[in-house]
Amino acid sequence: MSGKPKRIGVLTGGGDCPGLNAVIRAVCKTAMFDYDLEVFGIEDGYLGLIQNRIKPLTSMDASGILTRGGTILGTSNKANPAQYAIGYDENGDPRFEDVTDRCLEHLRHHHIDALVLIGGDGTMSGAAPFIEAGINCIGCPKTIDNDLVGTDLTFGFLTAVETATEAIDRLHTTAMSHHRVIVVEVMGRNAGWIALHSGVASGSDVILIPEIPYDLGKVCEFVEERSRWGKRFSLICIAEGAKSVGGEQVVAKIDPTSPDPVRLGGIAEILADDIERVSNIETRAVILGHVIRGGTPISADRVLATQFGHHAIEVLMNGESNRLVVCQDMKITDIDIRKAANKQRMIPADHPLIRAARAVGTCFGD
Amino acid sequence: MSGKPKRIGVLTGGGDCPGLNAVIRAVCKTAMFDYDLEVFGIEDGYLGLIQNRIKPLTSMDASGILTRGGTILGTSNKANPAQYAIGYDENGDPRFEDVTDRCLEHLRHHHIDALVLIGGDGTMSGAAPFIEAGINCIGCPKTIDNDLVGTDLTFGFLTAVETATEAIDRLHTTAMSHHRVIVVEVMGRNAGWIALHSGVASGSDVILIPEIPYDLGKVCEFVEERSRWGKRFSLICIAEGAKSVGGEQVVAKIDPTSPDPVRLGGIAEILADDIERVSNIETRAVILGHVIRGGTPISADRVLATQFGHHAIEVLMNGESNRLVVCQDMKITDIDIRKAANKQRMIPADHPLIRAARAVGTCFGD
Amino acid sequence: MSGKPKRIGVLTGGGDCPGLNAVIRAVCKTAMFDYDLEVFGIEDGYLGLIQNRIKPLTSMDASGILTRGGTILGTSNKANPAQYAIGYDENGDPRFEDVTDRCLEHLRHHHIDALVLIGGDGTMSGAAPFIEAGINCIGCPKTIDNDLVGTDLTFGFLTAVETATEAIDRLHTTAMSHHRVIVVEVMGRNAGWIALHSGVASGSDVILIPEIPYDLGKVCEFVEERSRWGKRFSLICIAEGAKSVGGEQVVAKIDPTSPDPVRLGGIAEILADDIERVSNIETRAVILGHVIRGGTPISADRVLATQFGHHAIEVLMNGESNRLVVCQDMKITDIDIRKAANKQRMIPADHPLIRAARAVGTCFGD
Amino acid sequence: MSGKPKRIGVLTGGGDCPGLNAVIRAVCKTAMFDYDLEVFGIEDGYLGLIQNRIKPLTSMDASGILTRGGTILGTSNKANPAQYAIGYDENGDPRFEDVTDRCLEHLRHHHIDALVLIGGDGTMSGAAPFIEAGINCIGCPKTIDNDLVGTDLTFGFLTAVETATEAIDRLHTTAMSHHRVIVVEVMGRNAGWIALHSGVASGSDVILIPEIPYDLGKVCEFVEERSRWGKRFSLICIAEGAKSVGGEQVVAKIDPTSPDPVRLGGIAEILADDIERVSNIETRAVILGHVIRGGTPISADRVLATQFGHHAIEVLMNGESNRLVVCQDMKITDIDIRKAANKQRMIPADHPLIRAARAVGTCFGD
Repeated sequence: MSGKPKRIGVLTGGGDCPGLNAVIRAVCKTAMFDYDLEVFGIEDGYLGLIQNRIKPLTSMDASGILTRGGTILGTSNKANPAQYAIGYDENGDPRFEDVTDRCLEHLRHHHIDALVLIGGDGTMSGAAPFIEAGINCIGCPKTIDNDLVGTDLTFGFLTAVETATEAIDRLHTTAMSHHRVIVVEVMGRNAGWIALHSGVASGSDVILIPEIPYDLGKVCEFVEERSRWGKRFSLICIAEGAKSVGGEQVVAKIDPTSPDPVRLGGIAEILADDIERVSNIETRAVILGHVIRGGTPISADRVLATQFGHHAIEVLMNGESNRLVVCQDMKITDIDIRKAANKQRMIPADHPLIRAARAVGTCFGD
Repeated sequence: MSGKPKRIGVLTGGGDCPGLNAVIRAVCKTAMFDYDLEVFGIEDGYLGLIQNRIKPLTSMDASGILTRGGTILGTSNKANPAQYAIGYDENGDPRFEDVTDRCLEHLRHHHIDALVLIGGDGTMSGAAPFIEAGINCIGCPKTIDNDLVGTDLTFGFLTAVETATEAIDRLHTTAMSHHRVIVVEVMGRNAGWIALHSGVASGSDVILIPEIPYDLGKVCEFVEERSRWGKRFSLICIAEGAKSVGGEQVVAKIDPTSPDPVRLGGIAEILADDIERVSNIETRAVILGHVIRGGTPISADRVLATQFGHHAIEVLMNGESNRLVVCQDMKITDIDIRKAANKQRMIPADHPLIRAARAVGTCFGD
Repeated sequence: MSGKPKRIGVLTGGGDCPGLNAVIRAVCKTAMFDYDLEVFGIEDGYLGLIQNRIKPLTSMDASGILTRGGTILGTSNKANPAQYAIGYDENGDPRFEDVTDRCLEHLRHHHIDALVLIGGDGTMSGAAPFIEAGINCIGCPKTIDNDLVGTDLTFGFLTAVETATEAIDRLHTTAMSHHRVIVVEVMGRNAGWIALHSGVASGSDVILIPEIPYDLGKVCEFVEERSRWGKRFSLICIAEGAKSVGGEQVVAKIDPTSPDPVRLGGIAEILADDIERVSNIETRAVILGHVIRGGTPISADRVLATQFGHHAIEVLMNGESNRLVVCQDMKITDIDIRKAANKQRMIPADHPLIRAARAVGTCFGD
Repeated sequence: MSGKPKRIGVLTGGGDCPGLNAVIRAVCKTAMFDYDLEVFGIEDGYLGLIQNRIKPLTSMDASGILTRGGTILGTSNKANPAQYAIGYDENGDPRFEDVTDRCLEHLRHHHIDALVLIGGDGTMSGAAPFIEAGINCIGCPKTIDNDLVGTDLTFGFLTAVETATEAIDRLHTTAMSHHRVIVVEVMGRNAGWIALHSGVASGSDVILIPEIPYDLGKVCEFVEERSRWGKRFSLICIAEGAKSVGGEQVVAKIDPTSPDPVRLGGIAEILADDIERVSNIETRAVILGHVIRGGTPISADRVLATQFGHHAIEVLMNGESNRLVVCQDMKITDIDIRKAANKQRMIPADHPLIRAARAVGTCFGD
């Protein structure tokens, strides 16, 4: 397939993230107003592509959605055309089928010759068979965790940090009044960007991230020393994927008398129990969970999402193929979509923000 | 003791609640500016009274704190002068002592002849021995749960509802985009006021409160029916003290092979598991926890707290004794402090807000 | 006309107010779900009634609007069927016509036999000819100023107070850092409820309301005295309708050399100039204006608006006629719609909140 | 003077900006904890240096201020040691004196050998005589307008954009409901960064900035065309320094019959009048003013401010002299402090964000 597209499809895949609608809006408006393209919305990510739930979008669909959380297109987490779950075999194991051809037929039926894919790792790697089949796939990276290789910043991240920071601000006053330790768990299974940024922004006393395994003894010592200085409270901001030194990440404790592992709480609850036991200071755990993934994006994310969506169409109409829109050194640019997939950007140990945080007295548990 | 006080003490007891500082400020400023009283701050609730941590407050101490969460005086949860834990006996059981006399001595030493007690049930019932000893005790009720008999509204409640509502708003967009059920747990062990108000304010589809035991089958049926109408998501706002019909409140499941009960999560997690199992719709649980207890009060709570604090001093200087400041029919007034303690205001089944919520389509699981 | 209605119309009139959509939603859902009524939306207030812009609403129209500011029905400020502007006569004076009959015809055409009117004074008094013609008119009072006789609270007011308070909080830090006086003007042409509540909530040092004419000398003296105590800044919260003692409200200064009066700024700018001139302290004016009228309602207003909308339909289906939904002593009830129109609820000089504000040191300029 | 400093002074100059306290905190904590320096706070900018209001700061002074707006040190706008106003001469003209020597004496008296200057152009250019006298001056740029040459981002800017965006979001619903044009004026006398970012973030239909003079006819045409499409409202975000084509910036209209110019309102009011006159669509003006300069910084600004403050001390302790901390390509670095002063970073006409905004349909009035 060659030449510039006349009709494009757009889909959102993976978890919720503030700014998805802002990207959709910019994709639609740029495509319609600037290039007179027809835009089709594919419902619920790749699932809609598989099930032929594809509908034309008008400029009215893209209007009034900039400030709204979620995605007007819907999303799905696991649908992958190359390996689509179609039931179970006689042993109860899931059976998969490659439904790429069916998807391609649906695209051909609607005369769609390019796709804008707004999603994470899974969505980008799912594009491979379509790229092979000649569909121009332009990606807009979506990860609230900000851990994608190739881009300094992804939309949604700053909103997640802001929501987490506001919550920690609230907990701060409670910790102070009660002379308590409060452990706040934020998202971040592999990379600790949200914990690092919201920890610094909220003035958390301890920040624990997957990249720096923590020593329980050092955390307790720090908390006790604060208490001795007259600071009878501490805020600990911990990423869900934080690990203690020498040990595996403890997401479950095995009950030796039971055949199945029993989940006894997340890392925040485990750490809170540990601190209370070791330091004998009243400690509480709070898990922010999905609250920081949803809702209206803050202004910085609306701006970034608008630029991402706009750039996706620019790239397309410049005749380029299979690019991923990224932000490097505060500039919007693009890289090969196949380069980004399945790699994660971890926080290096000497990251300037870690150094700044240490300098103002933050403990990283190491 | 008779006549109007010259020196008063003020303390805050029990859990954190937005507006504590606003009450302290109004107490101090009214006492100092209007009546030329000296005000002493007692640190960490009754604990400071027991330990003689009592310090004079100036108008500067009361300045700039209106907007701050927490309490500048500190608080403690369990200190009760009539039954003060002083260690353990040879069997490892806690030993208690009545330290009322010691507290009275501390009050006499500072020439304090009246107390303003800002706290919940425990703080108010803890006042009994001081009342008996002739200390005029004026209470300002503090309960984020808004479940105190004798008052329509307590400060902090509207802030808790607002914080919970903002969180549910965020979760709403995620539930919609993912076609999920999200179960949000808010505080409310005995009464469901926070769940009812934040549930209505957020347009939650299901509201589950301790006052109305829920039938899991009916909740699942409701969620499934919504799905059939095309509303492929549901928001469930549940109070931590909600119970299912016919059963006790399930805060723990006993693992039959283990000697000890194992906590498997709160009511939100249990309900989420149940719905996913019964209805086969992806369901997530979020526990808002302490986030809704802390932080800056919203304007309505700052106004209410200011009125409570002001009225406490008015009552005192009008020569009345042992009163509890309350809000009845939108007016600030006062009742006998001994009447309120240890009773809880539950939501009646025919409460107008429940009727309004049902009318707009909300399911209460019954 | 008698019996219970089968079809009702709903319209919103007058200025914007947070919570309009929440009322519309509750009206629609209660009418549709609880009573199986058909609901018609009338566009842009009475204008849509005059121009026959009336459309059936479905439950989907009422869905997802609880959190949204504005009104999905649109509004208009001045359209009055009894006196509808239809152009100008030969002298350039506006010509009016009574178009009530045309409106009644449109209602009959759609078989609408009851109206829910969400609006202010103008909207309620505009109902008179329809009431006379046998259309059952149920009113939901809408006034951001909270100055309606017969109701303690109207939806939108608490949101306006919250928005104003958040803005004053921001200005507070600037005033402190710069040792400045900042004069903040909020809405309130006749009654000072917004200024009183947001003034108390923000800890404003001076609150100036229409009900208490202010003496410039006393305001300046107060500000200067604060400066002498070491408080080198002051926040003044002023209602747009505040007046100085002995003088008319100064919305314009006449330039003596010019034939026409020249508007030199609102009351905030005039007061700021006056203070700077008299007290020689740097003073700035900020006019919050329409910002506090719009946007998402806070949770308390969503609850109140839901109850108002629900009660409107309850009243209707109880067979009552021509009622205005109100909130008295924290209970939702209703009064004769003809009693409320064109009267304003002013703040009495001895209002408890004024007394509390004075006690904590607030100056009212008197 | 050579060698590393033992005692440093810190001051904040110029207008308020969210994040000042966060910078002060990071400067103090890094200096005290990491390098064992003594830190002196200079009150009210250069004024405190002139008047010897210099006090030692402890780590407690720097604690708990991260989230607070304003500056704990106070600020002043116009004090310049090289040209200090000391009164008026016989003709009523101001008299100035060079008080640099007096300032140097105060610094010597406190053994301060380096200064951290947090301020804008004026503060940085005011450093010249101190640099000459061998005081090591490290600057942290403070401009809410984000228009400093040499840095991509300054703290406070993102908070200002967020506050402005939230206000415009509120106004949006009012404009839609009333079918009105609303003109919102934001800060930006010379550069339009705040207007551009908050305009894009809020989905404003028209953005007018000083860098692109606007043609009134084109703005009106755009607004009218939207109306014809069925979008009967428009949001216009205008920088205070925006200018119309061919004309000077109209901040005042001369009344021909009066000897003095009379200020008739800012650019927003003038534009609103013009649009209403030309297009006959109801139009309102709102001036956000100082509200966007103050208050708690958002999380992104707290992070940036912490990094700026930390880097200032790092630079100092690395033995470098007279540097200005900046953010280039998302990295914190530093440039010669003498290079930045008195130059402004304007928005280039082909800035990517302007291109993106145009692509999604925004009118820039050209």
